[in-house]
Amino acid sequence: MNGADALIQTLVENGVDTCFANPGTTETHIVGAIDRTNRMRPILGLFEGVCTGAADGYARLARKPAATLLHLGPGLANGLCHLHNGRKAHSSIVNLIGNHPHSHLKYDAPLTSDIVGLAEPVSGWVRQVSSPEDIAQDGADAVEASWGPPGQVSSLIIPADCSWTDEIEPVEKRQRSIKEPAMDKAVSTTADLCAHGAETALLIGAEGLTEHGLKAAGQIAAKTGVRLIAYTFEPLMQRGAGRVPVERIPYFPEDAEEALRGLKHMVLCGSKEPVSFFSYPTGGGTLVPDGCELSTFVPLGGNVIASLQALADQLGAKATGPTQSMSLPDMPNGAITANAASAVIARAIPEQAVVVDEGITVGFPAYAQSAGSAPHDWLFITGGGIGWAMPVAIGAAVAAPDKKILCIQGDGGAMYTIQALWTMAREQLDITTVIFSNKGYLILDIELERHGLGPAGANAHRMMDMDEPRIDFVKMASAQGVDAHRVEDCSRFADVLANCLKQPGPHFIEVMMA
Amino acid sequence: MNGADALIQTLVENGVDTCFANPGTTETHIVGAIDRTNRMRPILGLFEGVCTGAADGYARLARKPAATLLHLGPGLANGLCHLHNGRKAHSSIVNLIGNHPHSHLKYDAPLTSDIVGLAEPVSGWVRQVSSPEDIAQDGADAVEASWGPPGQVSSLIIPADCSWTDEIEPVEKRQRSIKEPAMDKAVSTTADLCAHGAETALLIGAEGLTEHGLKAAGQIAAKTGVRLIAYTFEPLMQRGAGRVPVERIPYFPEDAEEALRGLKHMVLCGSKEPVSFFSYPTGGGTLVPDGCELSTFVPLGGNVIASLQALADQLGAKATGPTQSMSLPDMPNGAITANAASAVIARAIPEQAVVVDEGITVGFPAYAQSAGSAPHDWLFITGGGIGWAMPVAIGAAVAAPDKKILCIQGDGGAMYTIQALWTMAREQLDITTVIFSNKGYLILDIELERHGLGPAGANAHRMMDMDEPRIDFVKMASAQGVDAHRVEDCSRFADVLANCLKQPGPHFIEVMMA
Repeated sequence: MNGADALIQTLVENGVDTCFANPGTTETHIVGAIDRTNRMRPILGLFEGVCTGAADGYARLARKPAATLLHLGPGLANGLCHLHNGRKAHSSIVNLIGNHPHSHLKYDAPLTSDIVGLAEPVSGWVRQVSSPEDIAQDGADAVEASWGPPGQVSSLIIPADCSWTDEIEPVEKRQRSIKEPAMDKAVSTTADLCAHGAETALLIGAEGLTEHGLKAAGQIAAKTGVRLIAYTFEPLMQRGAGRVPVERIPYFPEDAEEALRGLKHMVLCGSKEPVSFFSYPTGGGTLVPDGCELSTFVPLGGNVIASLQALADQLGAKATGPTQSMSLPDMPNGAITANAASAVIARAIPEQAVVVDEGITVGFPAYAQSAGSAPHDWLFITGGGIGWAMPVAIGAAVAAPDKKILCIQGDGGAMYTIQALWTMAREQLDITTVIFSNKGYLILDIELERHGLGPAGANAHRMMDMDEPRIDFVKMASAQGVDAHRVEDCSRFADVLANCLKQPGPHFIEVMMA
Repeated sequence: MNGADALIQTLVENGVDTCFANPGTTETHIVGAIDRTNRMRPILGLFEGVCTGAADGYARLARKPAATLLHLGPGLANGLCHLHNGRKAHSSIVNLIGNHPHSHLKYDAPLTSDIVGLAEPVSGWVRQVSSPEDIAQDGADAVEASWGPPGQVSSLIIPADCSWTDEIEPVEKRQRSIKEPAMDKAVSTTADLCAHGAETALLIGAEGLTEHGLKAAGQIAAKTGVRLIAYTFEPLMQRGAGRVPVERIPYFPEDAEEALRGLKHMVLCGSKEPVSFFSYPTGGGTLVPDGCELSTFVPLGGNVIASLQALADQLGAKATGPTQSMSLPDMPNGAITANAASAVIARAIPEQAVVVDEGITVGFPAYAQSAGSAPHDWLFITGGGIGWAMPVAIGAAVAAPDKKILCIQGDGGAMYTIQALWTMAREQLDITTVIFSNKGYLILDIELERHGLGPAGANAHRMMDMDEPRIDFVKMASAQGVDAHRVEDCSRFADVLANCLKQPGPHFIEVMMA
């Protein structure tokens, strides 16, 4: 077999069986290898950001990497924004990036660029294959590196001659390393800190926010009175009725400071020092309160669930913590405000759904109001690179075909990766995308006021408003083969949303905000 | 004034009066500064690749830089692909990239990334402002660096505190350096090489391909019989009736080798060693034939026009070279093939139009058939990063509001930056965009066959075809406020195209290929 075949077979043997692809000429032999095998599912994205975002969403649900297939430096460049988000989520992703053959690298051809340089800022592991004999080994190394722990982005750059050279063999399967639980000493130290009750907070991250981690955390809280807190943007949180709730740190620094005031001990459990999203002339920075001691119980990449269970055991915390009861907001009426839209969403979330949240101005109230919805997974935008939700929804749907995916998206962010809708239609994925049309980057207007620069003048409006012309999102979606609806009042929104979530396949709802 | 005001005023004084913007919170004060002045035109792109591509197109027509305004690492990342194209075109571009304030840089906040690392592969000049006092000086340095010669991409990273600090002043205007013509010795040496007649080729690049450069080159060719050649993808070529034609190097290496066979001297005039776009197992690499001597008459960044004029003087070449006569292909009938579409386009090109060519499978025949069209500028995709044409058309239209812009675009490439249509509508730019709908990445099918990997199987088709579902491009364009049409035969295409080019404002035509 040729190098491309050996590479693809090695990836498949190591569990990488899905490829979000946007190939070009330098990837022709890899396309050929995927064509010849029936063990890797190729999924075309019409823009590379769709592929990399999908790989992020896939990793969060499948807890293993997908591959991307990207075309030299420019193809990688288009995927970098969502690799940045994936890096911040510690998502395992294996990028396969084609390059010119070695003989051509010395020329300044049009597509020649510093691919390693482009890959490094978003990758935990970068390598260019140096000779065809190495390609399978390098592929296995890339997968292994992506596993972490913690998970990370691997970028393998493949000069085309390494793909097309014949008589190359795959390499043996690797063993995935185990995540280590916290040491006994850390368990004892943390147990002591828990004695401070509500002056101590466990800041829980990573898989600590799944049902099993939260169950142990709930036992600890029930026994000791510690607070359970999560950072504003974590990769995935399992929440809703029957689950142990955590406090989410508010977005604006002044609100976060208020929420965390009085804490004396903040204990990191698979998370890191919380900091404000932005800093302002008026404040921001670390969210650890003055006089609060920060300590690490479980480092990033550690086994958060086993560690929390060990801590519960140490504390003799056997009683189940308080769980969230099923509780839905009242059905709103009339025009659709952010709060009303949030209530409709909270009432509609199906059991075991995955909510992908890039709602921005609607995302926060929708999160708040869905605390008592049917149990579901909530995915957050970890790196702030917008246009993230629709690609991530694709990956989530591919990884979890038995789940309903509800993608909530602001209209500003939607336009960055609007091509994602086509892949949803092509693959007939079970995703309902809801766009909140407030006709602009509303968050920017808020920030201008916060900075004391408001009200915005004509030129500022030229940079923040999307109302001239207004985008017809229903047309944008149906043009790409997705069933699309527009709603202008709450009861119609509720009906259409319920219907979309019932019918398999991709759906799209444009919500006209009051 | 604050730092942002001082920066914007400094840019304006140095001729940067257009900003292709996609700002976020860290850029709020720069938005405020542009809001307060009436000397910089802000143009919103709904995706950063639209902004950077527009800046590339603007630079090619205006021959001076525009600014972009981008949001930290992820915003820059989304713009990198078209900065790559701009870099290869030696376009002058000034990127303004917001960052967290200095106090926040030490934290691993969600949007924190290695912005310098991301900028370097596409930039000739990168700097992060270190203190508010430096911001205006750094802005002036960025503009000066972008001028070159040759032109290049400058990336200025601006921590938000440098924008919001008060009592900062702008700096004085810089003088733009002059492009140097070739030295007398180089003129004599090249004159000697021209004595070899058709065994010598002048490889003309940069502004050598504008009317004045070509006029001098034509005199030289008329006197000596040397061949006038251009690389396959140059930033801009002035061509059509009344102009001196040059031979364009073919795309595939075997065709290029055939075209250049027999040359003994290749003389670079504002160009660089020509190499094949890709290399294949069967060939590729340098396009300088075996036994052909490569020499440099005008280096990159030199004054190509003055140098060619000096060479013509040295040779006593006063007689005008052969110019292209007006000559249009016959009007085709029936279904629309690549050749038929090309003939329709060639017949329709208005005088002094700008053609932005990312036609891929239609681009080459359209170029060939329009040799004798009304005089026009032809813009090529210099870096191979696709999704380039619509953004570049925006920049060209802003730089040259008196010209008709004809943007020809394959359907595959169109989907990368489909958001560009909205900016065309918002700014009511005089652009007619023509999309050739062949329902897939036809070039990949051709490459698969060339590599002996055809015919494509089911999995390969999943990565190359765009026909399931078929995208309704007319809907995609009208959803964004652009007047849109679909044509399925040649006479209708000709009528609609003529009409669109007559009416001011943006138009869109989806051409259904046979």
